[in-house]
Amino acid sequence: MLRPGAERISALGGLHKFMNWPLPILTDSGGFQVMSLSDLRKLDEKGVTFRSHLDGAMVELTPERAIEIQSLLGADISMQLDECLKLPASREEIARAMRLSLHWAERSKRSFEGRERDGFALFGIVQGGDDLQLRTESAHALSDIGFEGYAIGGLAVGEPQDVMLKVVAETTPVLPVKRPRYLMGVGTPHDLMEAVKRGIDMFDCVLPTRNGRHGMAFTRFGAINLTNARHANDPRPLDEQSVHPVARTYSRAYLHHLAKANEILGAVLLSTINLAYYQTLMQGMREAIEAGRFAHFHAACDEGWVRGDIPAL
Amino acid sequence: MLRPGAERISALGGLHKFMNWPLPILTDSGGFQVMSLSDLRKLDEKGVTFRSHLDGAMVELTPERAIEIQSLLGADISMQLDECLKLPASREEIARAMRLSLHWAERSKRSFEGRERDGFALFGIVQGGDDLQLRTESAHALSDIGFEGYAIGGLAVGEPQDVMLKVVAETTPVLPVKRPRYLMGVGTPHDLMEAVKRGIDMFDCVLPTRNGRHGMAFTRFGAINLTNARHANDPRPLDEQSVHPVARTYSRAYLHHLAKANEILGAVLLSTINLAYYQTLMQGMREAIEAGRFAHFHAACDEGWVRGDIPAL
Repeated sequence: MLRPGAERISALGGLHKFMNWPLPILTDSGGFQVMSLSDLRKLDEKGVTFRSHLDGAMVELTPERAIEIQSLLGADISMQLDECLKLPASREEIARAMRLSLHWAERSKRSFEGRERDGFALFGIVQGGDDLQLRTESAHALSDIGFEGYAIGGLAVGEPQDVMLKVVAETTPVLPVKRPRYLMGVGTPHDLMEAVKRGIDMFDCVLPTRNGRHGMAFTRFGAINLTNARHANDPRPLDEQSVHPVARTYSRAYLHHLAKANEILGAVLLSTINLAYYQTLMQGMREAIEAGRFAHFHAACDEGWVRGDIPAL
Repeated sequence: MLRPGAERISALGGLHKFMNWPLPILTDSGGFQVMSLSDLRKLDEKGVTFRSHLDGAMVELTPERAIEIQSLLGADISMQLDECLKLPASREEIARAMRLSLHWAERSKRSFEGRERDGFALFGIVQGGDDLQLRTESAHALSDIGFEGYAIGGLAVGEPQDVMLKVVAETTPVLPVKRPRYLMGVGTPHDLMEAVKRGIDMFDCVLPTRNGRHGMAFTRFGAINLTNARHANDPRPLDEQSVHPVARTYSRAYLHHLAKANEILGAVLLSTINLAYYQTLMQGMREAIEAGRFAHFHAACDEGWVRGDIPAL
């Protein structure tokens, strides 16, 4: 939206062409970003106004503008504008934000439908904080409006995992069974497994790349901190059974060195290792569900994560 | 030497295995690094003592230890320890440093020969600042000692290009014609062309990657600063004739955005584009020399660099 700008990307042929990325792209509406990152913002029924971190200009984001931006970008899946509260908040405040998000959902859908982008999808976002009744009300109302998919937003913002999973477990049964359910901003491999178990199909998260940039690897042995001195003299790969050559080929000692020295190559290698593990994990869950052995797969993964990394040399 | 340490890398099977890099590796002796990077250093006939930037410990580097380190690393080509002066310096000072480097060259060779690493090479380093007579003296004396290859050091330290090229032109005829000649720390594509013309075979330089990390691309159109606003709306690739898919496929607008936003991907893409261009350039020079049309190739490259980048849209 701000850099390099939606109109500029549209003029350049859309985000797929701009990024040279032929596969599907999901874009967020900006609601979460504005509310989590901007110091100065003003929110009302109409939309949200905030100060650009680039040039200090005041920028207005409405449900209609959020859809327009995502259309200009050429997103395959667009998200409605919503209001994300920081928890804890009062029930009144949570209810007000949830109903405002519902109102914005309707406006988002009207705006999206007017564009006639065949084959593209708009998702509604369930809000309601940690209040199960408000979550259920939000999920019902969104289902009545009708979207190509449904997200659960406003979680993974610092609450305990059991609170998040309780909200997920109460919300997914209310959502249409034929439409994808997407848990926003989640999470660790363990979060993913527990959320899929409760009916979630899709995720987005910075963890595999952000933690990769900071020396952390995710493998079937759990989370491994490569900056730890135990790896300094360890010639073994991170995981000799990984599908990813980097995880099978490069030594822990080298990855440790790269992470300690803040080498860009370390960030790149660990990010790709983590993305490969996340892909393997989700593929494993899909195959296990199809084969009717999800509980077995879940238990096997848990066992590896609980056992943890291989013993130090 | 300091991080992660030569003994550690040796215990891990050497640098090739550590880096997962099967191709030849040339290592520097550390002389240039100590003298250009360390605030606190003490130099005498025996060697150089400096303070580690990692833990503040005093570290001693002698010609023998420099060879030992490079042997532990498993370098294919090792460099003798030398003293690199900052220019300008007095003739007396330049002469003293050159003769100390010669003495260290002898000690380096004795130390290298004692290790019997068959198939591995040690290079001597010509010193003598911008004094042609001292350079010639250094080159003769090194040739008498006898090395697998000969480097010209102490250049590309801020002197004008014509001074550098004059030293190169005077030095290469003195060196054995059957051995590779290596110009250390050089340079731009134009530097490479002019140095090859004067008899240089090998280079090392941070330019393609360091400049790539800072938004600069090298192509047949010369150096291109991708952070310049003229690229912001330009859908064209950097060079549609490049051998490198990234230079042919990604738009200038995207590379501009990545560079402005300090995205790691920008550093990676531009570094690979630059390395590909340097490889293409050197391959072109080799083929032109074999075909007896170096002057023609030189003129054609010069023409592209002088004409500069394609006009803005």
